[in-house]
Amino acid sequence: MSLPTAYDVLDAAQVLKGIAHKTPVHTSRTLDARSNANVYLKCESFQRVGAFKFRGAYNAMSRLTFEEKKRGVITHSSGNHAQAVALVGSLLDIKTVIVMPADAPPIKLAATRGYGAEVVLYDPKERTREEISAELKEKHNYVLIPPYDHPHIIAGQGTAALELLTDYPDIEMLLVPCGGGGLLSGSALAAKHINPNCKVVGVEPEVANDATLSWRTGTLHTVKNPPTIADGTRTPSLGKLTFPLVRANVDDFANVTEAKIIEATKFLFERMKLVVEPSGALGVAALLSGWQAPSRVGVIISGGNLDPSVLC
Amino acid sequence: MSLPTAYDVLDAAQVLKGIAHKTPVHTSRTLDARSNANVYLKCESFQRVGAFKFRGAYNAMSRLTFEEKKRGVITHSSGNHAQAVALVGSLLDIKTVIVMPADAPPIKLAATRGYGAEVVLYDPKERTREEISAELKEKHNYVLIPPYDHPHIIAGQGTAALELLTDYPDIEMLLVPCGGGGLLSGSALAAKHINPNCKVVGVEPEVANDATLSWRTGTLHTVKNPPTIADGTRTPSLGKLTFPLVRANVDDFANVTEAKIIEATKFLFERMKLVVEPSGALGVAALLSGWQAPSRVGVIISGGNLDPSVLC
Repeated sequence: MSLPTAYDVLDAAQVLKGIAHKTPVHTSRTLDARSNANVYLKCESFQRVGAFKFRGAYNAMSRLTFEEKKRGVITHSSGNHAQAVALVGSLLDIKTVIVMPADAPPIKLAATRGYGAEVVLYDPKERTREEISAELKEKHNYVLIPPYDHPHIIAGQGTAALELLTDYPDIEMLLVPCGGGGLLSGSALAAKHINPNCKVVGVEPEVANDATLSWRTGTLHTVKNPPTIADGTRTPSLGKLTFPLVRANVDDFANVTEAKIIEATKFLFERMKLVVEPSGALGVAALLSGWQAPSRVGVIISGGNLDPSVLC
Repeated sequence: MSLPTAYDVLDAAQVLKGIAHKTPVHTSRTLDARSNANVYLKCESFQRVGAFKFRGAYNAMSRLTFEEKKRGVITHSSGNHAQAVALVGSLLDIKTVIVMPADAPPIKLAATRGYGAEVVLYDPKERTREEISAELKEKHNYVLIPPYDHPHIIAGQGTAALELLTDYPDIEMLLVPCGGGGLLSGSALAAKHINPNCKVVGVEPEVANDATLSWRTGTLHTVKNPPTIADGTRTPSLGKLTFPLVRANVDDFANVTEAKIIEATKFLFERMKLVVEPSGALGVAALLSGWQAPSRVGVIISGGNLDPSVLC
């Protein structure tokens, strides 16, 4: 598969028009004062399924051939990608099979089933999700929709930054959470297309900074099951597509502590009345950590599927 | 004092232009399906201080004479009105004194002081807040800014509904939380001015339905310290201005159970990623209770100062 370009993001934006929400941008005088900058939060928490993942899943699944759609799709995820694939399946009348660990939170299982997916449980102590989905894909001829390492997924995820930079073309720096790198790669393509001078910064938890190390050294680093509250960034490493894209287009990385991630999540809740999950709060955590920002900073708030116990 | 009219609301909107936020309107496919209507939530949770109270406080305090501003203002409130008066005082350089019970949550005391107010504590077992503020007002010649029973306060609170109805003039019913009736009175003035056919419905907790009874019977009812989680509606009764306004302009009342208020607060958090306090969720609680709605319903989400323990 060849690397997607900014034109694939523009193309994805056409496909998503009227289907994905154009999410709002929120600002806060308090955050501006603490960051010494004008900060624009692009709130993908208000996207369908509560996260940017809807964009990529719809862009990928709507482009399947008629024959592929009839076969059905499979993915492995216990997070927002699972719900996105399930919802897109119900919108496009495509059968969806989601491989999830048997110990996933019951609320996530219920939500995924609620969107109409068939959930296949496995025991994470005995098998890996990759084994199970490969086996099912083989047996039933399903199409795999991976969570990040796919050109249409990456292009779809880039449309959030495209909307933000189109509305605020003078943003000088864009902070983007990084897990598998789909959102970060797509955002960088979009941001540089609108404003080539916009610096793009990936944000990772300190304890899950595999992408930071990979970007810095040019060698793919892996961190297995990192102990971070930002569960959207627990992916072990960048992918075959996202690694070269991140190397080529990302200008810097910020790493934040677990304490700052929780502080940012609470700040967004208490002061801005935004429900944001810890992974979604990474950009704000970087700003609250004193990350040096220019005058105008964009932040992708990636999702809002927050377990309220984090706040209590 | 004479009763305010819709023209006072239009006038307040001019004063608040560029000062108060024009808050966003959120929608939800799930809520629409459950209500069998198109529902438009006017999110005052995103207003300054996290509640509509900023509108009335600014409208009232900015209209004080130079001499009154120099004297300083006093109010008694342990809720959002206290923070609104404190913030407006700091914006307009007016000294503010807030009388609060000594057992108020430390976070609320800190927030009110954080906005620059002088907080005077009293022991609610020994004195009433009215006694204390009357005594201080007398001694220091402060100007009283009451929480709801004041023409400028009522007119200011009406500007949220004015914005909503201006953007969605074909809304057929407007659901508004009711405590002391300032928001409800002002909203009714605004809504009927834009669309005289728009039905205005006040929403109260079942256990704090004094305004419902007052509206129905024409005699002022009082409920002291009602045991409701919706703390914004614990005011004992409508006021001298809000009672006749509610009688004249409100078409109906809905009463909701405590369980439905909590369900609505959680629904807004989980499904719509909105931080809304229980009082602010009353309109949605009415819809989730099966309140008969026409095709297009507006709901005033009055505030977002939510204690997260409600969710856990």
